[in-house]
Amino acid sequence: MALVLIAGIACSSDSAGSTPAATEEPAATAVPRVTSPDGLERVTQTVVLPPMMPVHEQVATGAPKIVEVRLEIEEKLIEIAPDGTKMWAMTFNGSVPGPMIVVHQDDFVELTLVNPATNTLQHNIDLHAATGALGGGDLTLVNPGEEVTFRFQATKTGVFVYHCAPGGIMIPLHVVSGMNGAIMVLPRAGLSDAQGQPVKYDKAYYIGEQDFYVPTDENGAYKEYATVGEGIGDTLEVMKTLTPSHIVFNGAVGALTGDGALSANVGDNVLFIHSQANRDTRPHLIGGHGDLVWERGSFDDAPQTNLETWFIAGGSAGAAMYEFKQPGLYAYVNHNLIEAILKGAAAHINVEGEWNNDLMEQIKAPGPIN
Amino acid sequence: MALVLIAGIACSSDSAGSTPAATEEPAATAVPRVTSPDGLERVTQTVVLPPMMPVHEQVATGAPKIVEVRLEIEEKLIEIAPDGTKMWAMTFNGSVPGPMIVVHQDDFVELTLVNPATNTLQHNIDLHAATGALGGGDLTLVNPGEEVTFRFQATKTGVFVYHCAPGGIMIPLHVVSGMNGAIMVLPRAGLSDAQGQPVKYDKAYYIGEQDFYVPTDENGAYKEYATVGEGIGDTLEVMKTLTPSHIVFNGAVGALTGDGALSANVGDNVLFIHSQANRDTRPHLIGGHGDLVWERGSFDDAPQTNLETWFIAGGSAGAAMYEFKQPGLYAYVNHNLIEAILKGAAAHINVEGEWNNDLMEQIKAPGPIN
Amino acid sequence: MALVLIAGIACSSDSAGSTPAATEEPAATAVPRVTSPDGLERVTQTVVLPPMMPVHEQVATGAPKIVEVRLEIEEKLIEIAPDGTKMWAMTFNGSVPGPMIVVHQDDFVELTLVNPATNTLQHNIDLHAATGALGGGDLTLVNPGEEVTFRFQATKTGVFVYHCAPGGIMIPLHVVSGMNGAIMVLPRAGLSDAQGQPVKYDKAYYIGEQDFYVPTDENGAYKEYATVGEGIGDTLEVMKTLTPSHIVFNGAVGALTGDGALSANVGDNVLFIHSQANRDTRPHLIGGHGDLVWERGSFDDAPQTNLETWFIAGGSAGAAMYEFKQPGLYAYVNHNLIEAILKGAAAHINVEGEWNNDLMEQIKAPGPIN
Repeated sequence: MALVLIAGIACSSDSAGSTPAATEEPAATAVPRVTSPDGLERVTQTVVLPPMMPVHEQVATGAPKIVEVRLEIEEKLIEIAPDGTKMWAMTFNGSVPGPMIVVHQDDFVELTLVNPATNTLQHNIDLHAATGALGGGDLTLVNPGEEVTFRFQATKTGVFVYHCAPGGIMIPLHVVSGMNGAIMVLPRAGLSDAQGQPVKYDKAYYIGEQDFYVPTDENGAYKEYATVGEGIGDTLEVMKTLTPSHIVFNGAVGALTGDGALSANVGDNVLFIHSQANRDTRPHLIGGHGDLVWERGSFDDAPQTNLETWFIAGGSAGAAMYEFKQPGLYAYVNHNLIEAILKGAAAHINVEGEWNNDLMEQIKAPGPIN
Repeated sequence: MALVLIAGIACSSDSAGSTPAATEEPAATAVPRVTSPDGLERVTQTVVLPPMMPVHEQVATGAPKIVEVRLEIEEKLIEIAPDGTKMWAMTFNGSVPGPMIVVHQDDFVELTLVNPATNTLQHNIDLHAATGALGGGDLTLVNPGEEVTFRFQATKTGVFVYHCAPGGIMIPLHVVSGMNGAIMVLPRAGLSDAQGQPVKYDKAYYIGEQDFYVPTDENGAYKEYATVGEGIGDTLEVMKTLTPSHIVFNGAVGALTGDGALSANVGDNVLFIHSQANRDTRPHLIGGHGDLVWERGSFDDAPQTNLETWFIAGGSAGAAMYEFKQPGLYAYVNHNLIEAILKGAAAHINVEGEWNNDLMEQIKAPGPIN
Repeated sequence: MALVLIAGIACSSDSAGSTPAATEEPAATAVPRVTSPDGLERVTQTVVLPPMMPVHEQVATGAPKIVEVRLEIEEKLIEIAPDGTKMWAMTFNGSVPGPMIVVHQDDFVELTLVNPATNTLQHNIDLHAATGALGGGDLTLVNPGEEVTFRFQATKTGVFVYHCAPGGIMIPLHVVSGMNGAIMVLPRAGLSDAQGQPVKYDKAYYIGEQDFYVPTDENGAYKEYATVGEGIGDTLEVMKTLTPSHIVFNGAVGALTGDGALSANVGDNVLFIHSQANRDTRPHLIGGHGDLVWERGSFDDAPQTNLETWFIAGGSAGAAMYEFKQPGLYAYVNHNLIEAILKGAAAHINVEGEWNNDLMEQIKAPGPIN
């Protein structure tokens, strides 16, 4: 059976409504949604390092596809702060957060999860965009030296967290060791604003916020462990305090500042996708706003508008779009400013363009008090 | 005066608009809302133990009613974890959370609060659904050996917390000792989806999340006290750290797993009502979603749709509806996974039905890496 | 060039659409928004001490204005609790929070920031309502003995936090030392309800919630420092625990109770503006509700309705409107009740009027159990 139906558009090469894989009766102006992967085109998505996004189209062309993605797990000692603090991270593809996956609604994601023999622990993947089997966690548990492939349909639009969830205390441990990322499921027609009109972004960035719980020794110095297993007991004790030692964007204090800073031009409509797999956060763009904000990540819901700060619940991702109006160096922070500055949750964005004095102007430079 | 008006439906046995108890002028298609209890039918609601809900209709029949409810306070030593940790709970009807009350908008709740002489402390009840007198707290303070009856009209729809609030430091102490529950005030026409179309649930569960602050001794072991009063000083000190020792669903770690697990069938539309009387939480159904979510609990507001995780503000209740698509064991957690796994905020749902391979399928079982 | 255009209304004294300062083509029913300050009328706003609001009109008359505001920074030792605990506050105009500024959308705010020579530190101002230059922070850094003037256009409606952000660790330190306030940018046509109908408030209050991190000595007593600089190191250590010693409304435990209590009459529609520049909070009016709630502060978004509790993300302000139905003493609290009662985040409102027994009545006073 070759399904060539796409949401909202009838394709001439097939007769809509006659397939057993469709769940809804076609109306005069609607075609059934595709519900089976049979006969769909296969494509491979090449994932990239965050904050970058994989190549993708905003408005889907053609019928849903089967999108093949390969994620390789890596346990590695990483440096998480400029003072040299190191911890054993657990990662998808070597980065914290793991790579962003991008598909459209009703696409089928065929994901291969690889646990190289160089690792020491069992891992799996639970995708909040998936339905059933603990989000896939039940079907993907792999020992070091194994790989597994499973497929799910992305039926809900939005941005969603994925993370490792291998059972028991290993669930929070792996998540706060960095083993999480996000998937964006775009509506087939792309994003819409609060009035339902189509909107496009000129660029998109993926910011993964991460809470770390690094144990300290009797002098208050951060401890470094010889193996991933050696630090588990101590780390669980810090976790129970619910007080992270570090809260960072993209794996380390300063990862998205300096050479890692993001960039944009005045007039660019930039989509910021922000995930936090475990702990609440409140993104804020200093000197900018969220023109359109999908705070809980669902693209089917009308976005909120003109926000100073938005709130991402622990265990979720959200998205905010902003058209830059002024050039300069912007800071993008978790606006618990202690978490931003003393714990590390801050990024920079270099914005080029022409300054608009009408929008803001220094009228009188600092000088003696009148 | 016999009021037999109901919202949206004119009753032939009375002439709408002629009663002094009505506050709005009737339009061609509307009748005034009932604002006085005079002459209304009385019914008794038999409360049940959470996570179960009392027998109720989703769409109201007839005029608003006076709903009589009796809650009996019990101070009791309860076990809150499988390791045998015990604490002095303060409870409505012996359970943490207290029983769910269900009425419809404009019903009158006539609540009798009983403080048996076997208790040692003053108690009262503040219902967030009520208007005036500290939510009823001012009118319901009872000593051991006393009972009180008061009545309020449920004018606002939604799910709302109720809790003991006897004044000063006793307010947070009683709340974090378990003395809270929820009331659901349904629209008279039942629930509606984001497009305003009526929706029904096949079953509903009430999950009350609770933060406990159990003191420890010099060895870090949880302390047990001989009386409810003995532990108050120590407990207040732990409370000031804002870091709970336990965060549980329905009174104890594991209360809603194993024999206490919830159940559903594929195709069931299940309403999960989640309250937290004191502390923020972020419910997540692993492998499922919130199809319709009333995050702040108001049924007059259009629900959000297709959420991975939703956010309940401390001191409130919210509701999420999900139609199960796949069978299996689901975990329903506070998605701060440390709070879920290391502190206890996790439940299980056994879902029966037929697996849908189109929606999710294991393509290649775990095996050697290609 | 004299601009006399106002949103939604064409003024006969000018020809709409012919000015280079306008960004949108006028439609038959719309005029361009003003985007340049040239030729606009100047007014001075006299700021007042919170919880009071400056004199303002709810619906704007005439074209956008240039609103001149003067804020003077004061470093001062303040008492933050009835037990005499003192700390070095950093303030705008001597109060915690700083004064509320009120303008309408498209007004231009011309703000003069004064840092008297009696202060010891550099300060600046970052307004979340402003666009570019770190919300103005980049253009307003002043040493003791200096003042600076800058102007920005208030293009987004809503309630927004402003705060000091002088760089590095001084950012969170100044914010948690009290150096923050709020600005309300009203739609030119005033506020609207969830159906888009105009609504007015009878009175408005500004409640600024503040987390303080006061260090303790070896006996657990709060330390008092001789200078603002002396306590910085200790305070930063407490801040890293993410656990405030005090959480207060308007600068001190009890500032809005007793003589400082707010007041209203039954039937008053009261707007409560609540800011928290650093930490999440969850306002709740005991015995009342949020009839209309702009939780993230944006007045362009439809308000949520009938909430028991609302949630303000750290680094933002929100607004809730309530028409009082019953007289009595109301408590308005952060409904993490530990934060309200043990840390200090509680206010009182005295409401005068006639009690409505239909809405709530004590049927049987406390007495022997039947």
